[in-house]
Amino acid sequence: MTVSLTAELWPDVQPETARRLMLAGVESFARRGYHATTTRDIAGNAGMSPAALYVHFPSKAALLFAISRSGHEQALALVEAAANEADSPATAMRQIVERFTSWHARRHTVARVVQYELGALPDKEYEIVAGLRRGIEQIVRDVIESGLAKGDFQVADAHTAARAILSLGIDVARWYSDRAKKSPTALGVEYAELALRMLGTRTTA
Amino acid sequence: MTVSLTAELWPDVQPETARRLMLAGVESFARRGYHATTTRDIAGNAGMSPAALYVHFPSKAALLFAISRSGHEQALALVEAAANEADSPATAMRQIVERFTSWHARRHTVARVVQYELGALPDKEYEIVAGLRRGIEQIVRDVIESGLAKGDFQVADAHTAARAILSLGIDVARWYSDRAKKSPTALGVEYAELALRMLGTRTTA
Repeated sequence: MTVSLTAELWPDVQPETARRLMLAGVESFARRGYHATTTRDIAGNAGMSPAALYVHFPSKAALLFAISRSGHEQALALVEAAANEADSPATAMRQIVERFTSWHARRHTVARVVQYELGALPDKEYEIVAGLRRGIEQIVRDVIESGLAKGDFQVADAHTAARAILSLGIDVARWYSDRAKKSPTALGVEYAELALRMLGTRTTA
Repeated sequence: MTVSLTAELWPDVQPETARRLMLAGVESFARRGYHATTTRDIAGNAGMSPAALYVHFPSKAALLFAISRSGHEQALALVEAAANEADSPATAMRQIVERFTSWHARRHTVARVVQYELGALPDKEYEIVAGLRRGIEQIVRDVIESGLAKGDFQVADAHTAARAILSLGIDVARWYSDRAKKSPTALGVEYAELALRMLGTRTTA
């Protein structure tokens, strides 16, 4: 639990103590689930008192929300950047899948909490996170629609294809481990190829 | 919680009381996670006393194992049947993905426990379930290898392709709900088409 790791995971969060608590939360939630984890467990895992936790997060739900929002914002930002930088729908899709997949492999413990503890968020917080998810899905759908309009992609239903492509990346968080044979980058490259095939790509990206 | 639902979910389990407890376990684990659920919660959910639960399952872990093993056995059986009935790798793959995907949609609450609570199984029970999972993956890989050998499929790495195809179906358990617009069957048909495209199918299945 080094300063550099937590700063890499949450560059926008200050101070370091808050980041240490987020990392302890990620580890505890990933291991035992949100509902079976107490704020005392998390504080202990971070080498702090429960009182010290409340200085940074008013509740366990607030800590989960900080982890979930940050993870979704990071995923949205990388999908957005990939879409904006590309000069064709095929290149955009290749970059989106490469980055989205490799993020879920590299950050698999954070991503597991982000993807599988949505149901534990309070209503208001859930709505904010759901909005970020809709943003990600919308970008992927827009790229597919634009490829369909240009005749670069051929697919029956853009909505189902978008969901399937995101599922490929999301499910990586479930099975990926540090013992996996493929690096996050190599996996991203292969999955991007599979995604372009699903879309019936006609151009080489 | 009717006799017909539990008998449909677990046709091989007797008596009905054990099936009712399995359903109560599925509902509790899916809602709060395995670790946050007590045997008292589960028994109460099934309208029984904790003592009545122990008549059928010696522990909470034994109940999770019964749910997990049965779910994996069902998934293995349907993948096996699909592979055996088909007369070509493409037909086999289409049937495997259709059935595997629609099972995860139709049984999404059971499947969520089956797929996401593996880590809570004790070592010996985990090994049994892991063996069933390897069986499923092996069948999918064999179908891909056989399609590659015949020139029907074109794919860089059978292992990655098998994992990606299973991921499509598994991730359905995470997002599918009874409010989903697509029926389990329709989703299975669409995902089968996407999977065949991923494999670069050259024959029409």
